[in-house]
Amino acid sequence: MKLLWIIGIGPGDPEQITLQAVAALGATDVVFAVDKADGADVSELAALRDELCRRHAAPGHRVVHIADPPRERRPADYAATVADWHGARADRYEAAFAGLGPDEVGAFLVLGDPGWYDSTIRIVEQVLARGTLDFDWRVVPGVTSVSALAAAHRTVLHGVGRPLLVTTGRRLTDGTADGFDDVAVLLDGGLACEDLPDGGEGLDIFWGANVGTPGETLVAGPLPEVLPRIAAVRAAVRAARGWVLDTYLLRRRR
Amino acid sequence: MKLLWIIGIGPGDPEQITLQAVAALGATDVVFAVDKADGADVSELAALRDELCRRHAAPGHRVVHIADPPRERRPADYAATVADWHGARADRYEAAFAGLGPDEVGAFLVLGDPGWYDSTIRIVEQVLARGTLDFDWRVVPGVTSVSALAAAHRTVLHGVGRPLLVTTGRRLTDGTADGFDDVAVLLDGGLACEDLPDGGEGLDIFWGANVGTPGETLVAGPLPEVLPRIAAVRAAVRAARGWVLDTYLLRRRR
Ligand SMILES: C[S@@+](CC[C@H](N)C(=O)[O-])C[C@H]1O[C@@H](n2cnc3c(N)ncnc32)[C@H](O)[C@@H]1O
Ligand SMILES: C[S@@+](CC[C@H](N)C(=O)[O-])C[C@H]1O[C@@H](n2cnc3c(N)ncnc32)[C@H](O)[C@@H]1O
Repeated sequence: MKLLWIIGIGPGDPEQITLQAVAALGATDVVFAVDKADGADVSELAALRDELCRRHAAPGHRVVHIADPPRERRPADYAATVADWHGARADRYEAAFAGLGPDEVGAFLVLGDPGWYDSTIRIVEQVLARGTLDFDWRVVPGVTSVSALAAAHRTVLHGVGRPLLVTTGRRLTDGTADGFDDVAVLLDGGLACEDLPDGGEGLDIFWGANVGTPGETLVAGPLPEVLPRIAAVRAAVRAARGWVLDTYLLRRRR
Repeated sequence: MKLLWIIGIGPGDPEQITLQAVAALGATDVVFAVDKADGADVSELAALRDELCRRHAAPGHRVVHIADPPRERRPADYAATVADWHGARADRYEAAFAGLGPDEVGAFLVLGDPGWYDSTIRIVEQVLARGTLDFDWRVVPGVTSVSALAAAHRTVLHGVGRPLLVTTGRRLTDGTADGFDDVAVLLDGGLACEDLPDGGEGLDIFWGANVGTPGETLVAGPLPEVLPRIAAVRAAVRAARGWVLDTYLLRRRR
């Protein structure tokens, strides 16, 4: 039977991959490389994937590129647009999987952890649900960007025995986060924490861009005080590296 | 200067350690091994630590045991008791660090990720705040038990672009989780999900005990339906392996 691995590779440092991921990659015949439509993540993240393949993949492995369908950036109906987009991705993934030989092993390398704000698992489930292809599949967990952020700041993610809310920039100011002292934010295209009530008075921020990569930049401090610096540094990282992915932890001062 | 590593080793599978953790362990002179007062985690988790040292630590490394101070299991004042206990731990850690030679490297091996429901970082901060010892320190992130759980179930932790609430058994039924469709639960000594309103109607559970270890056991399904099985399996794992650590994901059916 064909086998498909979905491999978490950690958030960007080639050393932050697990031995399990290295072994899975070493037993892979075909690495599926998803190329983003907007070219957003090309350079350093594609280089990371290439480096991991060079270091750990079996000598004769093939790389099969899957072009990501284009995506509306500010859709009116977020859920429906994402669902359509996932359908279009499933078509392309299905076509690519069909090219795996019998008993061949394919793999996706997923940034961070595949269960954590990534859609590869969902797309593979969608392809399987079509019933057109028969393959087994497995998931290798990875270090999330949020764990790497906390480690880089040498801090914990939450108070002793307290809850941690993980959310997106889009939802940070919709009321969900009210009452939480510890909030981790991902997928924030534009520093949503600038729009918090009271300008974020009483909150500390632990922020990081391109964590684990050569452009890693960290800023921590009282939110209202350091926000201007974070905005400037974020723009500088994007200018210097050609991309920026950032994540942060908000912590109410106790 | 003395250097202290706090190394996340992943949740239990010796293959779920990162290359960065392996390298840090390989450059360590002294591994600090914390022995729990109640002997709760002795057997397989101590064996994991020993195996990782055998495989990856420098040949001449020493292992220094730190006995964890005893802990009240059901304290009246949770926060104060935990604070006292952390103080007592800091005393013992401080004494142990004092035994590091100049320029020696020490390391703690932390289950999962050090930023995620673990107190080692806090205790080290406490020791540093005393100002009695001078050392540098670094944190290596790890795969959390929650990521490993999701991977073992081949599922994601949350809906597309939706928040994830991470909480403890103690807080699952205190109202914090109301309105969240995706909740990850750790540190649950006694299946707090049995006490959810409506018996957990409308929720699916993805549960796992001793994930990544030889006793790994997974159960998934509609919560009210599978709860009796989980309770039985949980007791069976504890009986068979001498310990049980479990974590689960609750997901409102969409
Ligand atoms: C599609 S999600 C992927 C998350 C990933 N699966 C994980 O486990 O972290 C992309 C978001 O993750 C965060 N992210 C991923 N890699 C990052 C990095 N190296 N540094 C900072 N943030 C990162 C950013 O918030 C980004 O918008
Ligand atoms: C003190 S916390 C440590 C968490 C750890 N730092 C992490 O990243 O997962 C202990 C709790 O983590 C969860 N846990 C840790 N290891 C586990 C495993 N191998 N299987 C299932 N749950 C685990 C359980 O909920 C347990 O009560």
